[in-house]
Amino acid sequence: MTADLLRVALIGASGYTGAELCRLLLGHPRVRITSAHARSSAGKPLAEIFPQLAGVLDLTVEAVDVDAIAAGADVIFSALPHGEGAPIVSALHARGARVLDLSADLRLRDRDAHRRWYGDDHSGGLRAVYGLPERHRDELRGARLVAVPGCYPTAAVLAVAPLLAAGLVEPRPLVVDAKSGVSGAGRGLSLGVHFAEIGEGIRAYKPAGAHRHTPEIEQELSLAAGGDVRITFTPHLVPMSRGILSCVYATPRAERGFREAMLAAYAKEPFVTVLPEGALPDTSHVRGSNRAHVSVSFDARAHLVVAMAAIDNLVKGASGQAVQCLNLMMGWPETLGLEAVAPFP
Amino acid sequence: MTADLLRVALIGASGYTGAELCRLLLGHPRVRITSAHARSSAGKPLAEIFPQLAGVLDLTVEAVDVDAIAAGADVIFSALPHGEGAPIVSALHARGARVLDLSADLRLRDRDAHRRWYGDDHSGGLRAVYGLPERHRDELRGARLVAVPGCYPTAAVLAVAPLLAAGLVEPRPLVVDAKSGVSGAGRGLSLGVHFAEIGEGIRAYKPAGAHRHTPEIEQELSLAAGGDVRITFTPHLVPMSRGILSCVYATPRAERGFREAMLAAYAKEPFVTVLPEGALPDTSHVRGSNRAHVSVSFDARAHLVVAMAAIDNLVKGASGQAVQCLNLMMGWPETLGLEAVAPFP
Amino acid sequence: MTADLLRVALIGASGYTGAELCRLLLGHPRVRITSAHARSSAGKPLAEIFPQLAGVLDLTVEAVDVDAIAAGADVIFSALPHGEGAPIVSALHARGARVLDLSADLRLRDRDAHRRWYGDDHSGGLRAVYGLPERHRDELRGARLVAVPGCYPTAAVLAVAPLLAAGLVEPRPLVVDAKSGVSGAGRGLSLGVHFAEIGEGIRAYKPAGAHRHTPEIEQELSLAAGGDVRITFTPHLVPMSRGILSCVYATPRAERGFREAMLAAYAKEPFVTVLPEGALPDTSHVRGSNRAHVSVSFDARAHLVVAMAAIDNLVKGASGQAVQCLNLMMGWPETLGLEAVAPFP
Amino acid sequence: MTADLLRVALIGASGYTGAELCRLLLGHPRVRITSAHARSSAGKPLAEIFPQLAGVLDLTVEAVDVDAIAAGADVIFSALPHGEGAPIVSALHARGARVLDLSADLRLRDRDAHRRWYGDDHSGGLRAVYGLPERHRDELRGARLVAVPGCYPTAAVLAVAPLLAAGLVEPRPLVVDAKSGVSGAGRGLSLGVHFAEIGEGIRAYKPAGAHRHTPEIEQELSLAAGGDVRITFTPHLVPMSRGILSCVYATPRAERGFREAMLAAYAKEPFVTVLPEGALPDTSHVRGSNRAHVSVSFDARAHLVVAMAAIDNLVKGASGQAVQCLNLMMGWPETLGLEAVAPFP
Repeated sequence: MTADLLRVALIGASGYTGAELCRLLLGHPRVRITSAHARSSAGKPLAEIFPQLAGVLDLTVEAVDVDAIAAGADVIFSALPHGEGAPIVSALHARGARVLDLSADLRLRDRDAHRRWYGDDHSGGLRAVYGLPERHRDELRGARLVAVPGCYPTAAVLAVAPLLAAGLVEPRPLVVDAKSGVSGAGRGLSLGVHFAEIGEGIRAYKPAGAHRHTPEIEQELSLAAGGDVRITFTPHLVPMSRGILSCVYATPRAERGFREAMLAAYAKEPFVTVLPEGALPDTSHVRGSNRAHVSVSFDARAHLVVAMAAIDNLVKGASGQAVQCLNLMMGWPETLGLEAVAPFP
Repeated sequence: MTADLLRVALIGASGYTGAELCRLLLGHPRVRITSAHARSSAGKPLAEIFPQLAGVLDLTVEAVDVDAIAAGADVIFSALPHGEGAPIVSALHARGARVLDLSADLRLRDRDAHRRWYGDDHSGGLRAVYGLPERHRDELRGARLVAVPGCYPTAAVLAVAPLLAAGLVEPRPLVVDAKSGVSGAGRGLSLGVHFAEIGEGIRAYKPAGAHRHTPEIEQELSLAAGGDVRITFTPHLVPMSRGILSCVYATPRAERGFREAMLAAYAKEPFVTVLPEGALPDTSHVRGSNRAHVSVSFDARAHLVVAMAAIDNLVKGASGQAVQCLNLMMGWPETLGLEAVAPFP
Repeated sequence: MTADLLRVALIGASGYTGAELCRLLLGHPRVRITSAHARSSAGKPLAEIFPQLAGVLDLTVEAVDVDAIAAGADVIFSALPHGEGAPIVSALHARGARVLDLSADLRLRDRDAHRRWYGDDHSGGLRAVYGLPERHRDELRGARLVAVPGCYPTAAVLAVAPLLAAGLVEPRPLVVDAKSGVSGAGRGLSLGVHFAEIGEGIRAYKPAGAHRHTPEIEQELSLAAGGDVRITFTPHLVPMSRGILSCVYATPRAERGFREAMLAAYAKEPFVTVLPEGALPDTSHVRGSNRAHVSVSFDARAHLVVAMAAIDNLVKGASGQAVQCLNLMMGWPETLGLEAVAPFP
Repeated sequence: MTADLLRVALIGASGYTGAELCRLLLGHPRVRITSAHARSSAGKPLAEIFPQLAGVLDLTVEAVDVDAIAAGADVIFSALPHGEGAPIVSALHARGARVLDLSADLRLRDRDAHRRWYGDDHSGGLRAVYGLPERHRDELRGARLVAVPGCYPTAAVLAVAPLLAAGLVEPRPLVVDAKSGVSGAGRGLSLGVHFAEIGEGIRAYKPAGAHRHTPEIEQELSLAAGGDVRITFTPHLVPMSRGILSCVYATPRAERGFREAMLAAYAKEPFVTVLPEGALPDTSHVRGSNRAHVSVSFDARAHLVVAMAAIDNLVKGASGQAVQCLNLMMGWPETLGLEAVAPFP
């Protein structure tokens, strides 16, 4: 029976999105993880790096050898940092493998913009499908190269794209005030992730156009709006491991119809729930799951619309979304391996 | 196909163990949740009580009507508080249903002890199998009435029972110093669960023989030891939602063999992992999963053995263990619906 | 020497602002706490209600008897919930005592607005000085009745009032996206403060004009702007005990001068620090202190100004601010008893 | 007036105990911080390293130049890591300065033991007074060189020394199960302090005789017992910034008198409170203060005594205790600058 399973390799397996890919793919009925690769920890048992895998997944991390990976896997998830993964992704793609790239390298259509925000092009001329199924489902079906969206862009776009698409809010300026758990910063060490520094307080970072997810959010919202969207984006670090709550403030073009537009947009979406009137998204309720909870409120006094979305940054904001894309690429049921509900509390 | 699924009813669905049963049973391939019952919230949509179920499970909480429940379900999980559930469990059992009781009512074999610690007998003469598969697997096969163990007893017994069974440590006195997440206190309101009171500190509660899990731990450890075990038990409240870490201190009868005894005891256990030498259990690594991580250290200087176990109090310490018991009761593979790895971090 | 100390009574001593008043006044060189009063816990030792006072402050909580309080104290801090305290404050004021009211009863100048937001007038015709020294210092000198501001209004007004006063941003609409620690919800019990519900996630509550601090923020910002300010206000609950971080988004009327206006406004303020360029406020750095950290950023791409302030909601947002007001009322040095730096980390 | 103030220099000012010394000494009426020194961050404003000092303390970190320090200060607090500070402490002591060393270098009387646990002697032949006022007050009066105790030893010794001194418990074996906040690990970076790794779980580390505080605890408890005490010590990392809760388990030699011995030992202690019967220590209630809360329970069933102590690891466990020692060295009132109550919640 294992013979029928799709062979999957993970690159960048020693990071948080790598661990989360392991978890989700272990529960996926049609795939088998055949190898895990990382640059710095090759030779170590994966279960030593991530003890939650002890007794469950017996793999030793291997070096990143493109030929070996291409020979041993049908699909590759690459979770390397931006810039680092591009040549590897490119080489794997050239060898015919299906690739899902979780880095930022291939997300922006405007390569000049990528160059401005990331310092170089990195794409090697490749063009990937942007892996947000709720906005690009048709392109994802059968795709061979997917750029998995960033966590902040996923939350912001799910919160407000339907309102822009329906012409119910002005495309500029939008305020995106987002709050993230610490796993979003990755497993690397810095004073900014030290528990004693951030464990009992909140702060913003890289506001006012300084964060690299800004152009990615604008790209997708502009596609939805059919015109140029401009945002100010303020990410915050919250003392929790997982979750993003994104609040988007927009100037309305109408007095009503906001909630209806959200309901219509997400009526058939398997992973997006428009909460009942009066309820508001809470990251706790989507933690560990691929679901997004969204809401929209109209402040008639201030004449502003407030749209919110909560996701798990490592699932719907990264690894879960990647698996959802895989399901679409392979023509499988879109929810395969992703049905699990959040373990709340 | 649904016709083949075992029909399951949940009583006490509005509490945390109820929510966790929903989550786990939704992912179980051979059961179908047919109804959810609770005393206080009958009439409410379950997804209003637990928003993580929004868009996933469309059930309205029903009152606790024994006849209706017995007619509509093959198996019932009862997660009512101790004392409250006993008559209902008794009535359902009498009507032929398989019942798993997550309360403390049927855990103690010594009903006088139950009376002393809980104020009354509560059992109505029923006798249940104690649902710790690692200690009572054979009795659980085919059982029709199971008392699902408490969270603290599960962690303490998994940590040290093999050492007692092997005669490697003295049966008395044992020190059980346990640290629990706040969900263990249930969803009821008290100053003791207010975030501002407990969110950034640690404290013990009910030490020195005051906590009702004391006789339950002693019962199971005494069975393992083949003699009377006596413990002092100190539970602590830790600022985290889930998890129990139990440290058990015992006087050794030998100078070696501790780790070997643990490895032998758990060699074939699907959910208990003896960590590699030098590694120590961390509740983060088992959170949301049915796994237990255990370790044992010998302090030659102080001539004491330190055995540790980490579990998720709501999974291996309650609802997951209940599902594991169900699998044994039904003769199914023991890990069905419980394979998921902890979503760490 | 104690004969020279101002006699202070606390009403509502069993709540968090009451405890914080105790802490601050115990460290104040010119006052003596002569009695503590509360409605529900009269007769209990205060150190039983707040164990941090064990061995330090030996007071028994007394009932709220206006005549006795007025006879025994020169100054009264009232920290009763809105509506409850008004008649008591009124009676104490009539008896000649200086009163600082930490409730919302006397904050709004527009009593119709108060009636709309709080359901009744509550003021009994009294008019208090709004106790935000940075905006009303002159009125506070010698005042006999002070309405201590709300925590959210303090943070929002400190963040953006100088920009409005300088005419550098449009008065409407402003977005106030604020993140608060859980102590802001008070010591009362609700599912919304249960650790297991909120300890590892973030959510908004009462957005889009539903929160009662909205008109208070608008009142003070309108005074600063010299015209009608309108905001949308979104409070969030963050898993931390203390702190508010307020981010205010405004449309600029200029391209520069924002930081200069902030520096000018706060140059002589003892408790407000405009952070160095590039630094951003963090609630951890003001926790337990009466200080506010503020910053302003200009997003030229999106043409929006982002102003931030971090305070401790129980100190600068309540009890510390009250003590600062007391110092002004008495003609004492404004920083007396409030010099302490945040115990970070 | 500043002319009369004692001139104080801080070495190791960029760490958490350095920051805490700043905070406490800024509130001390008889000292003035004249300079702050650190090896790695010389040249940086201290307020950039610790933003809580912004607008309060305007010092630039200086290099560690022994002659300059000795010339400019009467008293030096050295908070360098063990091994690093010894030659500097030695040189300052030789130049006649009073020195309080917060490292472990001079704590152990048995220099062979120090060599075994720390790899080298480090003391340079110096002998310091062990700075635990509750056990060594007379020696501290007028002392010129003090070894400030470790955080874990402070908590463990305060919890159980009176019982050993009174002969009420056996000296061996003792179980010391301690739970610490993350600031105890210092400001250095490691995966072990990354929020995402430890923010929502608990784990033990270095159990069974592996932690270097073991011999320090044994030294002080042996002095109290008048004989050789042997412990097993299990430290844990708890998701909170500050605080240590230490639970000590001991075999009783009597059936009563435990609480009386504690009350007698601490009757006149300004910073140790034996909690009322039934109450248990909580780190939240001593956070930010120099106080210790202790309790003792007798488990008659298990024939064990459970003694507990809660302290703030950075205050009573480090910097506050150092200031308490300074007060004794100088012949000042022992509580000077340390009166503040914990800002709970």
